[in-house]
Amino acid sequence: MNIILIDKKELSENRVVLTDYRAKHIVKILKSEIGDCLRLGVINGDIGEATVTAVQRKFPFLVELSVELVAEATPRPVVDLLLALPRPIMLRRVLSQVTALGVGTIYLVNANRVEKSFWDAGLLEEKEYRPHLIHGLEQAVDTLLPNIRIHRRFRPFVEDVLPHLASQYSHLLLAHPLEEKKLSHCLDNCSTERVLYAVGPEGGWVDFEVEKLLAAGMQSFSLGARILKVDTAVVAIHSRISQELERQSER
Amino acid sequence: MNIILIDKKELSENRVVLTDYRAKHIVKILKSEIGDCLRLGVINGDIGEATVTAVQRKFPFLVELSVELVAEATPRPVVDLLLALPRPIMLRRVLSQVTALGVGTIYLVNANRVEKSFWDAGLLEEKEYRPHLIHGLEQAVDTLLPNIRIHRRFRPFVEDVLPHLASQYSHLLLAHPLEEKKLSHCLDNCSTERVLYAVGPEGGWVDFEVEKLLAAGMQSFSLGARILKVDTAVVAIHSRISQELERQSER
Repeated sequence: MNIILIDKKELSENRVVLTDYRAKHIVKILKSEIGDCLRLGVINGDIGEATVTAVQRKFPFLVELSVELVAEATPRPVVDLLLALPRPIMLRRVLSQVTALGVGTIYLVNANRVEKSFWDAGLLEEKEYRPHLIHGLEQAVDTLLPNIRIHRRFRPFVEDVLPHLASQYSHLLLAHPLEEKKLSHCLDNCSTERVLYAVGPEGGWVDFEVEKLLAAGMQSFSLGARILKVDTAVVAIHSRISQELERQSER
Repeated sequence: MNIILIDKKELSENRVVLTDYRAKHIVKILKSEIGDCLRLGVINGDIGEATVTAVQRKFPFLVELSVELVAEATPRPVVDLLLALPRPIMLRRVLSQVTALGVGTIYLVNANRVEKSFWDAGLLEEKEYRPHLIHGLEQAVDTLLPNIRIHRRFRPFVEDVLPHLASQYSHLLLAHPLEEKKLSHCLDNCSTERVLYAVGPEGGWVDFEVEKLLAAGMQSFSLGARILKVDTAVVAIHSRISQELERQSER
């Protein structure tokens, strides 16, 4: 945890009292004393500093902080993710990892090779997935929660929703093993605004889905011959896109 | 599992009999029948095809394959990893993920913020870590096992071993939060041969370690303001380096 994140409604006249995992972290890991300064942010809000004004070091842990917000949140990341719903244990990790890397919106969609049981996972309720997003923000020192959009049916999403979304993006990218075009060619020589990238299920998209995604405006590229698991692919493609965007921003 | 991997000594006159997790995978997941063709490779050897010649579909599973090796292994990946020893549960995941991405050698070293107990993990014995490397190869369709080098003391490694290794690399890269230089500048405009990148422990390298790594020939670069967990950083930096190398190879 590299920043303490709080809800705005927890703040009362620049004071906040923590009694949950954050209090435990401040007591047991940071071993903070009264007067110590911590980095603190308001979820979807500003970043600042907190001074420890009271601490209960034994269970039940309690930490009181005096908060001064000094800086605005970092801007919304320019990369969004379209992800075929993975199994819950993998989704948890992907949510916190891609949030740490920086993502604006995550679209969770169905696909032929998504097991039906994945849709029954409680993880798809906001109160269940939110802690994994928070975990990613706490790691990366950010306050801006990604948006989560859930589409339980592939065809209405790809036919009705995605073509409408496409106008928001300068690039819509789909890794595809049969494509020869490299990512650098897809992102080269053009002003990049927002980028959406798609990662399929274990086993990949079926042909029909690839056709539909391309018809909706996505562009395919090759990630090379090595086949990656979903969690590796989500981080790897995000990082490759970020590297290209960083290079372009330096021109 | 996108390729069945076998040891050379399992092969007897182009036949191999599997009775372990590979047999189970072929029976339960691939649901292969007699006559079906599977992709097969010899660890640290050639790649080819295997035809199912006999199968026992009930426990204990058994699959007999007739093997024809037709292609050489892919060349050794040009990227190596220097990694401060992470906790065992993370090391397992990192080993298979970075092997899937493609890595030549992984140097596991000590650091100030590595918990001493991590060195007691049985995972550091070859028979324990090897399955995680194999798992990465099975995922990525590769046969070449990464080399694992274990250095339990940081100072002898960084003073005696690393300066000697440095001559093998055109680039030795160290992500550092205080550096402003971007990765693209480090890798730009020069012929790239082999690249070694370093990832520190959770909490980062201490100043002394950074000084020592730089003195041994490493070059620091910025990955941006976001702080990443070790497993995310290993995949993210590997992917950014791969993206730069891919771009250079196209010139």
